[in-house]
Amino acid sequence: MGPTVTETVTATTTVPEGEYKVADMSLAAYGRAELAIAEVEMPGLMALREEMGAAKPLAGARVMGSLHMTVQTAVLIETLKELGADLRWCSCNIFSTQDHSAAAIVAAGTPVFAWKGETLEEYWWCTNRALTWTDGGGPDLIVDDGGDATLLIHEGYKAEIAYAKDGTVPDPSTTDNAEFFQVLTIIKDGLKADPKRWTKMVDRLVGVSEETTTGVHRLIERAREGSLLFPAINVNDCVTKSKFDNVYGCRHSLPDGIMRATDVMLAGKTVLICGYGDVGKGSAQAMKAAGARTMIAEVDPICALQACMEGFQVIPLADVIDQVDIVITTTGNKDIIMKDDMAKMKNNAIVGNIGHFDNEIDMAGLEDPASGIKKVEVKPQVHRFVFPDGHAVIVLAEGRLLNLGCATGHPSFVMSCSFTNQTLAQVELWKERTSGKYENNVYILPKVLDEKVARLHLGKLGAKLTELSSSQASYIGVKPEGPYKPESYRY
Amino acid sequence: MGPTVTETVTATTTVPEGEYKVADMSLAAYGRAELAIAEVEMPGLMALREEMGAAKPLAGARVMGSLHMTVQTAVLIETLKELGADLRWCSCNIFSTQDHSAAAIVAAGTPVFAWKGETLEEYWWCTNRALTWTDGGGPDLIVDDGGDATLLIHEGYKAEIAYAKDGTVPDPSTTDNAEFFQVLTIIKDGLKADPKRWTKMVDRLVGVSEETTTGVHRLIERAREGSLLFPAINVNDCVTKSKFDNVYGCRHSLPDGIMRATDVMLAGKTVLICGYGDVGKGSAQAMKAAGARTMIAEVDPICALQACMEGFQVIPLADVIDQVDIVITTTGNKDIIMKDDMAKMKNNAIVGNIGHFDNEIDMAGLEDPASGIKKVEVKPQVHRFVFPDGHAVIVLAEGRLLNLGCATGHPSFVMSCSFTNQTLAQVELWKERTSGKYENNVYILPKVLDEKVARLHLGKLGAKLTELSSSQASYIGVKPEGPYKPESYRY
Amino acid sequence: MGPTVTETVTATTTVPEGEYKVADMSLAAYGRAELAIAEVEMPGLMALREEMGAAKPLAGARVMGSLHMTVQTAVLIETLKELGADLRWCSCNIFSTQDHSAAAIVAAGTPVFAWKGETLEEYWWCTNRALTWTDGGGPDLIVDDGGDATLLIHEGYKAEIAYAKDGTVPDPSTTDNAEFFQVLTIIKDGLKADPKRWTKMVDRLVGVSEETTTGVHRLIERAREGSLLFPAINVNDCVTKSKFDNVYGCRHSLPDGIMRATDVMLAGKTVLICGYGDVGKGSAQAMKAAGARTMIAEVDPICALQACMEGFQVIPLADVIDQVDIVITTTGNKDIIMKDDMAKMKNNAIVGNIGHFDNEIDMAGLEDPASGIKKVEVKPQVHRFVFPDGHAVIVLAEGRLLNLGCATGHPSFVMSCSFTNQTLAQVELWKERTSGKYENNVYILPKVLDEKVARLHLGKLGAKLTELSSSQASYIGVKPEGPYKPESYRY
Amino acid sequence: MGPTVTETVTATTTVPEGEYKVADMSLAAYGRAELAIAEVEMPGLMALREEMGAAKPLAGARVMGSLHMTVQTAVLIETLKELGADLRWCSCNIFSTQDHSAAAIVAAGTPVFAWKGETLEEYWWCTNRALTWTDGGGPDLIVDDGGDATLLIHEGYKAEIAYAKDGTVPDPSTTDNAEFFQVLTIIKDGLKADPKRWTKMVDRLVGVSEETTTGVHRLIERAREGSLLFPAINVNDCVTKSKFDNVYGCRHSLPDGIMRATDVMLAGKTVLICGYGDVGKGSAQAMKAAGARTMIAEVDPICALQACMEGFQVIPLADVIDQVDIVITTTGNKDIIMKDDMAKMKNNAIVGNIGHFDNEIDMAGLEDPASGIKKVEVKPQVHRFVFPDGHAVIVLAEGRLLNLGCATGHPSFVMSCSFTNQTLAQVELWKERTSGKYENNVYILPKVLDEKVARLHLGKLGAKLTELSSSQASYIGVKPEGPYKPESYRY
Repeated sequence: MGPTVTETVTATTTVPEGEYKVADMSLAAYGRAELAIAEVEMPGLMALREEMGAAKPLAGARVMGSLHMTVQTAVLIETLKELGADLRWCSCNIFSTQDHSAAAIVAAGTPVFAWKGETLEEYWWCTNRALTWTDGGGPDLIVDDGGDATLLIHEGYKAEIAYAKDGTVPDPSTTDNAEFFQVLTIIKDGLKADPKRWTKMVDRLVGVSEETTTGVHRLIERAREGSLLFPAINVNDCVTKSKFDNVYGCRHSLPDGIMRATDVMLAGKTVLICGYGDVGKGSAQAMKAAGARTMIAEVDPICALQACMEGFQVIPLADVIDQVDIVITTTGNKDIIMKDDMAKMKNNAIVGNIGHFDNEIDMAGLEDPASGIKKVEVKPQVHRFVFPDGHAVIVLAEGRLLNLGCATGHPSFVMSCSFTNQTLAQVELWKERTSGKYENNVYILPKVLDEKVARLHLGKLGAKLTELSSSQASYIGVKPEGPYKPESYRY
Repeated sequence: MGPTVTETVTATTTVPEGEYKVADMSLAAYGRAELAIAEVEMPGLMALREEMGAAKPLAGARVMGSLHMTVQTAVLIETLKELGADLRWCSCNIFSTQDHSAAAIVAAGTPVFAWKGETLEEYWWCTNRALTWTDGGGPDLIVDDGGDATLLIHEGYKAEIAYAKDGTVPDPSTTDNAEFFQVLTIIKDGLKADPKRWTKMVDRLVGVSEETTTGVHRLIERAREGSLLFPAINVNDCVTKSKFDNVYGCRHSLPDGIMRATDVMLAGKTVLICGYGDVGKGSAQAMKAAGARTMIAEVDPICALQACMEGFQVIPLADVIDQVDIVITTTGNKDIIMKDDMAKMKNNAIVGNIGHFDNEIDMAGLEDPASGIKKVEVKPQVHRFVFPDGHAVIVLAEGRLLNLGCATGHPSFVMSCSFTNQTLAQVELWKERTSGKYENNVYILPKVLDEKVARLHLGKLGAKLTELSSSQASYIGVKPEGPYKPESYRY
Repeated sequence: MGPTVTETVTATTTVPEGEYKVADMSLAAYGRAELAIAEVEMPGLMALREEMGAAKPLAGARVMGSLHMTVQTAVLIETLKELGADLRWCSCNIFSTQDHSAAAIVAAGTPVFAWKGETLEEYWWCTNRALTWTDGGGPDLIVDDGGDATLLIHEGYKAEIAYAKDGTVPDPSTTDNAEFFQVLTIIKDGLKADPKRWTKMVDRLVGVSEETTTGVHRLIERAREGSLLFPAINVNDCVTKSKFDNVYGCRHSLPDGIMRATDVMLAGKTVLICGYGDVGKGSAQAMKAAGARTMIAEVDPICALQACMEGFQVIPLADVIDQVDIVITTTGNKDIIMKDDMAKMKNNAIVGNIGHFDNEIDMAGLEDPASGIKKVEVKPQVHRFVFPDGHAVIVLAEGRLLNLGCATGHPSFVMSCSFTNQTLAQVELWKERTSGKYENNVYILPKVLDEKVARLHLGKLGAKLTELSSSQASYIGVKPEGPYKPESYRY
Repeated sequence: MGPTVTETVTATTTVPEGEYKVADMSLAAYGRAELAIAEVEMPGLMALREEMGAAKPLAGARVMGSLHMTVQTAVLIETLKELGADLRWCSCNIFSTQDHSAAAIVAAGTPVFAWKGETLEEYWWCTNRALTWTDGGGPDLIVDDGGDATLLIHEGYKAEIAYAKDGTVPDPSTTDNAEFFQVLTIIKDGLKADPKRWTKMVDRLVGVSEETTTGVHRLIERAREGSLLFPAINVNDCVTKSKFDNVYGCRHSLPDGIMRATDVMLAGKTVLICGYGDVGKGSAQAMKAAGARTMIAEVDPICALQACMEGFQVIPLADVIDQVDIVITTTGNKDIIMKDDMAKMKNNAIVGNIGHFDNEIDMAGLEDPASGIKKVEVKPQVHRFVFPDGHAVIVLAEGRLLNLGCATGHPSFVMSCSFTNQTLAQVELWKERTSGKYENNVYILPKVLDEKVARLHLGKLGAKLTELSSSQASYIGVKPEGPYKPESYRY
């Protein structure tokens, strides 16, 4: 056989210099090879390309994305592009970018601002740049994950109102939140250049589709207090998102992250999963399946009783702090594992977060110079924090999402479900941009689309549905083609 | 050691002759022994006895129950009694009564009309008798399972309206539904005696709490068309009911029923579960856990994709009809396994239903004299239907719920969750009987009660909850004591 | 449809009055119906009937069996009969007989001495009767389970030697073992009638095939000390027996037994399995699969480490005595759960044994009149032992094998593996009866027969083997048709 | 907090230039950090260091190792060193070396010849160099994995005999096996320099301990034909090796390898595991646990029946070749997946080997220039082989062990079991080097050492053994301290 062929992709790009920033354009070929594999694993997105590619339903739409710049997201981006969109992209997490996929997307002509290992300042700079087209204007649509793009716009808008009223300029020094400091700095610096920039952006914006529980929670808060500035579609609560990505995605990527980070055998270990929501359920199932003795810490008695029914011991962290080998947070809440907890753990106990923000783990406490704790890097995203008494805890991804930081996040197939919903949400928002169908509120997609997303993913797995006869359909009061369940159905 | 002691319970009863009908009062002692065990397994009900026993919140309420007369139901009955209720009871399934528990309840002074193996005529006679207090009047409250008591009242009321209008009397010969024939016969016969009996019953009725998906479906239909005659609380959709009883109850009682009926080894067998809703999920998990090669037939693409994610092959019955050793229906729909399907099955393939009605399986086709099929009883509730070609299928519980017909139904602990909700619903209906809070519509219990039910069951399992700090609660926008999730949360 | 047909079997029998003793001959029809189902589930035995039925390789052989008189054993008996054997049978456990199968076997012409619920005196009387043909002579071959038939013969032979030497007669009062008392009594009583009866029986005996670990252990002890009186084939250690019946049989029949006995929900319960050998492995897997929090008590560090690898906590009984809801012994050892342990358990904790003898649980301690413990029968084989402080433990099958006492033992399919080995062993012993191939030692069947047994069971499960090419076979140094593994291979 | 500290290790080494060859000495610090984590995970080895470190039982012994140069092996090497050995090491697989661990070991003073991605020529050069101390002499002891070091010595010895007899020199061109070509070349080249080199090496050699099934198979073949040149201890068949490393190691490292290589979601995929031995059992369990629909191809009917009992469909590859998404070979045999099979697979089906040699997969067929198949590298160890019809298969690790090639092999904890046995075997061989206890045959370690290995690993997992009382021990005929099982026990 001749020499192995590496399919080459030109690392040159039509994106003008300065309109993108990635780690290394020479990774574009490798990124493209990974995309080619991912496309086969993402049947929902590929089906939408086929179904809607010719009609270009997103023609004319500027779409900004703030969502982990991974291989899977790259397939989403190219799907939106195939449907006609004009895109700019950044990541929503400083560690989650896969540099080869970012390079491949830029090589194919779409501006991306993202690399693995951004500082917070760089992160918000990327978000801001992705929101700004070359003509200075903003997007028509946003694909958001966690709500950072939405946050920046809302804060900018608020500051412009205040500034217009009495010349108030935001003062970054008023916050001790390191992220919010960056947000205020960007807004403050921008006010001088254009005191109507965010207002104009809001005027143009047709809507946002949001990927996560946390982002949806923020949107609902805004809608409740009447401050939401544009319509939002809650993609997170599609069944084919929350009951798939959150459960099965994490079931795959939690052990993947722990194994890549530490190579530690999971079988026989004592693991505590903090939280038994969808993410916790997937996580606990994975740890149990790997042969770990798995326990659950939970606040909600219903979720706790579900954990019991699956054979998990339900117990607070404090009660088993000196027995656990691995503790994983999945809560979406804060202050789950504190420095004082980690002080009591076994040597080399592993601590990781697959919930949402890094404040699930007390990173501030660990990194406090006064603590006497030494931070030793084993390899990127894997650190031993050595306590004064000599014992260490191994913290993954510096407390951020370990599946993205230490592995490659959720696998393509499950992300295809989520992203097919995202694509349908973007098409719906753009189609209804002038119809008045959507007000400044939070909406979910109709169940029939949710079922469509599922349907598009069954063939790849060789699954064959049973068909409902019309007499059966009428017996249970549905149409033969669905939707099959009431809105309240829990799956 | 001296001779074994059997704790004796008097088989005498204060219930007057004729005000009860059970199989064998001499089973009362055995029933009481089983109740004593069940009480320890039903912590939610026992906690309500302790919490509310002194206050007697159901004092003055006549409660009629139409719900499988099992040991667990007996603990529910005695809980309602302890809370002050005046009760009469019947079963909601001709095979599901446990005769020893029926006897024990009568022995303790409550009228019961139920025995294992009723004919359809006897079944509806029992329902009618349970609805009729000694003074001829009806109940204030109903505990319904599947909606048969509610059906009888609604049909009676409708007939009385028609009769009052133009003297129309229902004609049982107009239906070919064997059950509905009995309903119409009872109503027709009653019209002569008292043409206002059902109208008066409706006037008195405060409300019904309904246990099942099927019954709730019927209630919602009535509410939608405006014909519901009294308020209803949907107990089925409490999370601590539908996600527990349906899933974990069936996971326990499906293999229990198959094993007691047939003693067939499940490991290695090829099993098809028709339907992957909550009942199907529990059923499939049980079969997989027992070492069976388990496949799923499903109509709904979302549920089908969930099945795929758990490693089940999704395939229509017709495609595997000649390979399956066991087929179980869990759909709540009709015509799932037809005679012609069974004609193609392997010899001694097992066919059973854990969904709802016996029309999931084509019993009519099997029992059609023209079919040439011979019905051979192996033991009660287990029959071989031998086809003309000599092969047989083994049908469990004559197509009715096999877990109740062939085993003892769901175990006490999971029924304690369901029945604690039932008790709370009855107390709520009675408390608000004059407040106008409930109209003739279908309601669900507030989430905080659902969480309370879960909480009452954790201690028995040694589970210990984590407490939310007030700063954590405020971070996620809930109260530290709950409820913890939005209504739309799917668990 | 016409009335349900019950296939009738004549309850008359050709076995002469007095040459059998069972509970109720009217159960014969029901037993025959169960046999018909079991035959379909026992493909190995049915295949041997087809393969060897015409040749009658057991023609002329008197075969005595001492093995649980269940439906499955009935299929074994009729297989041995079909191969030409002249049989007599008893059970090897006072609770394990299924009366309908005993009746069916007698109805078909084979003497059986067995019923459910024998006293110890009756048990040994049955064993003795089964060993005695109508001409007063004994068997050529024995199928033994636990070694009781073998024990009686060896003790009888020993007593006859002693008696011949100096007239010594065994004195039952010298033992405080209730079982051994019966053995000595039978021997003592028989000595007067025929002081050479056991000696003649030994002379005639060709060999025994033994079913269990315990029985094999006894045989090896005898062989080691040179006192074994005839050849023995160790069927227990066939892979298709020990790794199937012990593991998968118990995985099926443990939950079956607990559920039939107590109806207690297994999910969420805390279960301790004492022993993690083959029986313990199957038991623990079943409890985990049912959603119980399962722990292991183990002496052997290798087995303990296996338990760890499967995610089980390994911990001594004493450490969790007040937390467990269910404790099951699987050890084959004695004194595993003592009265003082049970004194510390939770109210209604369940205690059962699926190992071997009832001395795994301290029944003697519980039944000691001085203990102040009250024994309350819930139903046969289910007793609450109420301690003076008011708490109770629920003991299954009075400490004997709960799967046989409270359910129907192992299912047919897995017993077909074991009993196909038994049949092959009987044929082998009889074929080689004069060849001198077998001395008074303990043998195992050649691996090629073990593989044959497996092969005979694959078709029923739809399994299709891959064939080894001759070049592949030669690459790994085996024949294409097997055997495929060295003797030391552990499976 | 101050800057993150990276603990530094000097990349200088006391090993003379030329006496080692690794990829990159600057990785030594990272390797040392990983070793520090691994040590905590390898309690058996660390316990032996503590128990025997002072006594130096290997003092004076030259130990050559041919075993995957991973982090875990590094801990083995340093344990042997702590016990007094003088070591040289190479890998036994061209892809399995972890370069950072090789560097760390050299930095600590031990010669290593190994890097990830050796050519076959380089591989055998490394083996040869590791066998040659600076004085030109060979080792006293060998730690072998797969038997390559043993092979080279035996072939060399054989060639020297032939050469001495009649001047025959091996002719590499006589073999079409690419590996054996290298072996013969080395021997041929060496003959000129020293025609007694291998003979002297054999004279010195005390023995070898072998790690794998394949290597043991080769040793037993040699012993059978009388050509084995030194004693061998079969470490592979220690229970704590074969039933742990093979089963639980693969259960961990198979999904790890697939996920790192392809990021493909396992849930929902159709997977065929070829072979259901120990490796296949662990592999199948892992795939099932990940939510894949898992099937088994198997030759041995006993293993096939075990697969059935766990719910796996047993079916030949040919029958499902067009349905499978992933096929994994675990057989230790050859020609399992041929080019013509792969020609029929779905696009991007994944093919990998976790058995032994790369001839389980027809790599030769794929790489045959005449095949028209194009080999595209996605990333190292991950290639798409694109067939002329356009579909591709993704082959992992070029057909070699995918867990080592695509991930990091088995995790530390399970390797600690294997390597503790290796260490005990080396100590035993050296202790008995002059006693004559071991002849040129293959031995296994006594069970009591096997149990010791297990015991040393329980504490780390928080497991607590139950102690056998002396009366219990005597009841089952063992000593309270073990060994607890007969040699034939299968675990």
